[in-house]
Amino acid sequence: VAKRLEKFKTTIFTQMSSLAIKHGAINLGQGFPNFDGPDFVKEAAIQAIRDGKNQYARGHGVPDLNSAVAERFKKDTGLVVDPEKEVTVTSGCTEAIAATILGLINPGDEVILFAPFYDSYEATLSMAGAKIKCITLRPPNFSIPIDELKSVVSKDTRAILMNTPHNPTGKMFTREEQIAIATLCIENDVLVFSDEVYDKLAFEMDHISIASLPGMYERTVTLNSLGKTFSLTGWKIGWAIAPPHLTWGVRQAHSYLTFATSTPMQNAAATALRAPDSYYEELKRDYGVKKSILVEGLESVGFTVHPSSGTYFVVVDHTPFGLENDVAFCEYLIKEVGVVAIPTSVFYLNPEEGKNLVRFTFCKDEGTLRSAVERMKEKL
Amino acid sequence: VAKRLEKFKTTIFTQMSSLAIKHGAINLGQGFPNFDGPDFVKEAAIQAIRDGKNQYARGHGVPDLNSAVAERFKKDTGLVVDPEKEVTVTSGCTEAIAATILGLINPGDEVILFAPFYDSYEATLSMAGAKIKCITLRPPNFSIPIDELKSVVSKDTRAILMNTPHNPTGKMFTREEQIAIATLCIENDVLVFSDEVYDKLAFEMDHISIASLPGMYERTVTLNSLGKTFSLTGWKIGWAIAPPHLTWGVRQAHSYLTFATSTPMQNAAATALRAPDSYYEELKRDYGVKKSILVEGLESVGFTVHPSSGTYFVVVDHTPFGLENDVAFCEYLIKEVGVVAIPTSVFYLNPEEGKNLVRFTFCKDEGTLRSAVERMKEKL
Ligand SMILES: CSCCC(=O)C(=O)O
Ligand SMILES: CSCCC(=O)C(=O)O
Repeated sequence: VAKRLEKFKTTIFTQMSSLAIKHGAINLGQGFPNFDGPDFVKEAAIQAIRDGKNQYARGHGVPDLNSAVAERFKKDTGLVVDPEKEVTVTSGCTEAIAATILGLINPGDEVILFAPFYDSYEATLSMAGAKIKCITLRPPNFSIPIDELKSVVSKDTRAILMNTPHNPTGKMFTREEQIAIATLCIENDVLVFSDEVYDKLAFEMDHISIASLPGMYERTVTLNSLGKTFSLTGWKIGWAIAPPHLTWGVRQAHSYLTFATSTPMQNAAATALRAPDSYYEELKRDYGVKKSILVEGLESVGFTVHPSSGTYFVVVDHTPFGLENDVAFCEYLIKEVGVVAIPTSVFYLNPEEGKNLVRFTFCKDEGTLRSAVERMKEKL
Repeated sequence: VAKRLEKFKTTIFTQMSSLAIKHGAINLGQGFPNFDGPDFVKEAAIQAIRDGKNQYARGHGVPDLNSAVAERFKKDTGLVVDPEKEVTVTSGCTEAIAATILGLINPGDEVILFAPFYDSYEATLSMAGAKIKCITLRPPNFSIPIDELKSVVSKDTRAILMNTPHNPTGKMFTREEQIAIATLCIENDVLVFSDEVYDKLAFEMDHISIASLPGMYERTVTLNSLGKTFSLTGWKIGWAIAPPHLTWGVRQAHSYLTFATSTPMQNAAATALRAPDSYYEELKRDYGVKKSILVEGLESVGFTVHPSSGTYFVVVDHTPFGLENDVAFCEYLIKEVGVVAIPTSVFYLNPEEGKNLVRFTFCKDEGTLRSAVERMKEKL
């Protein structure tokens, strides 16, 4: 294995999902729904396959999807972008992140991350030879320590990689926090790569795209995907929205990482993104119910549940149960209780910082959530 | 844009396919069929979508596809591989190439390429910080200059990246050539990355996977995909077959480039790979007819057509028509004749070496091929 990837293990999602299968445990680990995506999107994919939309798409996306992404972005942020020059369709948001980093970051560039962070960020930055500066968000509120952030920005800082609503904590970056980040970026000529895949799962406040703040669009790559919003995580359609000079870098890397993304799925994604507002409202309502079931359930089991404003995740403090750390707790939970959660220490540069926290997802049907809570009540 | 990608332009396939649309020209450029893939594969995808196989696949592939890839490889090469430890499913062969290179090559490692080469090879090696050593295959036969190859192998040589049947020339590496490469690799402890996406389009001789030569499996990553064999280039399903110690590197990079590949498409790919022998025979027969139409047509127009034993491409010498180089010729061909071909100079480290050659594809229905020939006869 190349040195750039030596320190990384099999992703925690892969590890935990295969343990879930092995032990017949209820999987509240990896974030994929155990219910299906909407019929109108599935039918659109079927139609595209039947209609012979089965050959290479344009590298940067099927024209109709590029347009649908731009339309959606306008609805969400008010920003008008050129679908041909500012939207790049990728094979999931993971590829959009990789293309952004490999396309725009040089070896030695400093990139700021907020821990805990989705594991691909660190690995991809390592592939690009970036220097990582890491700011830790601390429970219970996981607020951004702005002074600390200011203190790590240097003349070598090329970008801040942020994620709101935030996986794994469910924290949403407030308007004040985003303005502070924006000011810092403008003053120091820093880019922002903003992963917003959970933007439609914002429960306690409205989602804000940092690209929509004054002076920010020109220095921001906004990353998003279809999977979470349409309960179709396996379709792997993502995109990056950025001004032309940044899009150029993203597309260059994308051209040689995957070249293009599944054509029939892209056609269906265009249909999905044009869903009526009622679709998005219902999604949020449904997830609100699931969230209550899980949060109340976990509290009744005895966990301290940290507040989550968005995503379909919550993190809890497992220390009342006396296991030595998050990994030990998750092992116990799988083997003795039959429930899978995700240990959070893998999301920190310094694993110690995550040792009290584990993540549960509520992207499961209500019965499954209730059964998981029952098992924990009984056996924990 | 990051320095590693600065020298690369928009891929030639993207450039030429958009010119084709703009000028209403017949597209014998980018290699995608203008006919559809087989119904039994399309129906399998539709079934998978209907059956709710729409959430994240396992990172390294849907189990049934990993098995189908291993079965197919056994049929083709006699090699028995473990689908769980030696097969990695990727988002097209382009991603398999990227994951192999980013997962196994360190900055400064030397990698040997044969020019002309598929453009992603150079760009991806550049992303990995590899040093490229390039051997040019020369017309009319594009044979491997073994002595030259021997002379560039050094103690820093980490891998040879080869492609047979070969895009763009249609050359197939002979058994003697492959044995010579294998001997060199074993003697110098060099890996082979072997791109075999056109293996089922082998007209004049049998395809040989270099992994099947004695002592080679343990040092080879065999790369392949669904698209060319099943006329479904837009589905973007590829894979890498390699012994566990190499698979580890490929999977590490894959985990952070795309994580996983479209679940319903993977299920359909498993069905595809289990097609009866008659499917593969018919495919070859059909392409044989198309090839004759194009080759005879091009000869009748006045081109020198270089012999092509495999792939769905042929390269021709355009110099009888008096344009100064391949790019000028292709521009003339689009604008004045209404046919798109691919200039080959982009496939060389030194573009001069490709200036007499352009590539045509015959992955089009017979009527289209005949019309293209008619246009050239009339206007060239
Ligand atoms: C590859 S898992 C993608 C992210 C997610 O769903 C998770 O964090 O569980
Ligand atoms: C991205 S184009 C892939 C390869 C091919 O089809 C070609 O060489 O034309």
